[in-house]
Amino acid sequence: MSTLEQTKIEQTKIEQTKPQPAALQFPALAPPRRYLFGPGPTMVHPRVYEALSKPIVGHLDPYFIQVMTDVQQLLKTTYGTNDGATLVISGTGSAGMEAAVANFVEPGSKLAVFANGYFSDRLTEMAKRNGANVVRFEKAWGETYTDDEAKEFIAHEKPKVVAYVHAETSTGALQSGKAICAAAHEAGALVIADCVTSLGGVPVEFDKTGIDIAYSCTQKGLSCPPGLSPMAMSQRAMEWLRARTTPSRSWYLDLKLIHDYSTVSHRYHHTAPISMFYALREALLVIAEEGIENRWERHRRCNQQFVKGIEAMGLRMHVPAEHRIATLNTVVVPDGIDEAKVRKQLINGPGIEIAGGFGPLAGKVFRIGVMGPLATEDNVQFFLKEFKQALSA
Amino acid sequence: MSTLEQTKIEQTKIEQTKPQPAALQFPALAPPRRYLFGPGPTMVHPRVYEALSKPIVGHLDPYFIQVMTDVQQLLKTTYGTNDGATLVISGTGSAGMEAAVANFVEPGSKLAVFANGYFSDRLTEMAKRNGANVVRFEKAWGETYTDDEAKEFIAHEKPKVVAYVHAETSTGALQSGKAICAAAHEAGALVIADCVTSLGGVPVEFDKTGIDIAYSCTQKGLSCPPGLSPMAMSQRAMEWLRARTTPSRSWYLDLKLIHDYSTVSHRYHHTAPISMFYALREALLVIAEEGIENRWERHRRCNQQFVKGIEAMGLRMHVPAEHRIATLNTVVVPDGIDEAKVRKQLINGPGIEIAGGFGPLAGKVFRIGVMGPLATEDNVQFFLKEFKQALSA
Repeated sequence: MSTLEQTKIEQTKIEQTKPQPAALQFPALAPPRRYLFGPGPTMVHPRVYEALSKPIVGHLDPYFIQVMTDVQQLLKTTYGTNDGATLVISGTGSAGMEAAVANFVEPGSKLAVFANGYFSDRLTEMAKRNGANVVRFEKAWGETYTDDEAKEFIAHEKPKVVAYVHAETSTGALQSGKAICAAAHEAGALVIADCVTSLGGVPVEFDKTGIDIAYSCTQKGLSCPPGLSPMAMSQRAMEWLRARTTPSRSWYLDLKLIHDYSTVSHRYHHTAPISMFYALREALLVIAEEGIENRWERHRRCNQQFVKGIEAMGLRMHVPAEHRIATLNTVVVPDGIDEAKVRKQLINGPGIEIAGGFGPLAGKVFRIGVMGPLATEDNVQFFLKEFKQALSA
Repeated sequence: MSTLEQTKIEQTKIEQTKPQPAALQFPALAPPRRYLFGPGPTMVHPRVYEALSKPIVGHLDPYFIQVMTDVQQLLKTTYGTNDGATLVISGTGSAGMEAAVANFVEPGSKLAVFANGYFSDRLTEMAKRNGANVVRFEKAWGETYTDDEAKEFIAHEKPKVVAYVHAETSTGALQSGKAICAAAHEAGALVIADCVTSLGGVPVEFDKTGIDIAYSCTQKGLSCPPGLSPMAMSQRAMEWLRARTTPSRSWYLDLKLIHDYSTVSHRYHHTAPISMFYALREALLVIAEEGIENRWERHRRCNQQFVKGIEAMGLRMHVPAEHRIATLNTVVVPDGIDEAKVRKQLINGPGIEIAGGFGPLAGKVFRIGVMGPLATEDNVQFFLKEFKQALSA
């Protein structure tokens, strides 16, 4: 429907009374200018905003079914899977995490978690609420696991499911998944990978890595507003799911039902967030047009430029070079600097949002995202200049 | 940030390669023209589309916290509560239902359900997955409960929690809640009311009715796209929640944590869907400007006009006059008419979406929504003319 027709419908004789007192207290929506250099949400591509405001259709409309199908197909390229099934959860990245846990963990089943940051703690908490027996391999926030460590842990614990965080938003550390997946499959276990911060920004390579269940969000590497969680499941995971006899503790996040609505019968499960699906389709198209590998390379180059600039200021990175997430940097707060003051300076001055650390890293690191439209040479320069100024203010 | 600046950021040296083969298969997003006369999603106010496309800020940005706070305050008027707490779940209406169940039902606790349509079945299913002992008062789809029936059922069952569907989307029947709430409180039970189809269209009157926990959606009476679930909780419900010692089976829908993020400490729980919150704020403002009581009255008048037109065609309504939802009509399919054919005619011709019945009402009713921007005299006339034509085609 054109905007004209929509407006006609709207204006047709709604007998509007004078604004009521309740409405008068609220100013018109006018978000301030922000450069989102935090860990997410990050800058949204203008085409995605345009898609968001397109008129909605019904959730069972053939047009919407096609939009869902397009999204699933585009996600296959983004995730790097030929054989896997892709679908989208109608909630944020945390809903994707809960979907993974609630569907692939059963009461009493053993889940092995690589615990080196905040999101593995969240995974642990969700798994406990789903009745799992959780065993954890603890490391300090920012550290990663070697192939041998992963192998030994899994061989020793013999879990049913293994979970690791690919790109840990709380620490800036990237965990390679290949050895984890190989060891898990050897032990007959499924592997859940948290790809919230990696998808669209750094290589996930679902099939090549051997992941069975991955979830992500829309507001980081995909340059889309938050609200949906794109998932991928291997054929092994799908078989396991089909064979599961006890229902998942969550109906809303029941992947059997969602998979059926999304890809098989299109039978009503819930009313999908139509506008957010429009936005995600557009965001994935923008990525496909750039080419996922070109995009990784652009982020990698900007990360090198960023780190070079940071080190030139005499600062250092929290994570060793070989384990960094290209899109999310943790910069150590120098002695004598009040990190909260720097962040305040940046948001109140140039309107730049970055984040601080939390948990064991509270006050110790800045978390700075350089993703999507912000990952260009000029934008990195712009950021470094403002950051330097704020540090010396 | 202005669109200009955003575009500048975007265009700054993203080294765009030629469109990749994967992207070439997908046409530009161009949703067809639809008049959404179904049970939902329904037509969205143009101001809401505009709000959707405003640039996002961070989920902990003071501006976003203010948006959340505005939404909570506007929801108080929409729900009709002074004392209750309001908040928004980052998922659709079904996520609100699961939040209500997962937080207020404990393993082994008794839940009494008034079961007269599809959504009470969904409630039952969710409650079972949360370990509840569910007892049901069964009635045919479209029937309602008298005050005495409600009283006797609750007095007999002595449940911990009572649940009913205020406006049953699958049948078109409106269940009065006053006697249910009074009887439940007498028995020391909390009351969950499903207000998915009623909020913003017909009176909910949360405080006056005595509801303890209510959830709704955005895509029906609020004239906003789907994606969020606005909730209200009474002080009794909040006290019960604070006293609960076992964690809810859902972390994503944990109302203690969400209430804390939304209204108390604003401590990070999940990344709220920023754009959808912008949209909801605008939708609630539009309602506040019209005045919620004026809005109910507009829907009531249009419903009378609609029913008169339907009966003038020799058709009849499925639900008796005194129990109808003013915004959602179930019209009995006349003998000899193939309802699926009529729906197809409407969507392929004038682009009008309506829904059929399902479950026991499959093939037996049309479900026709007249809400929000569509609830005007001219739009009802437009619909009736096209509907008549489709029936005789």
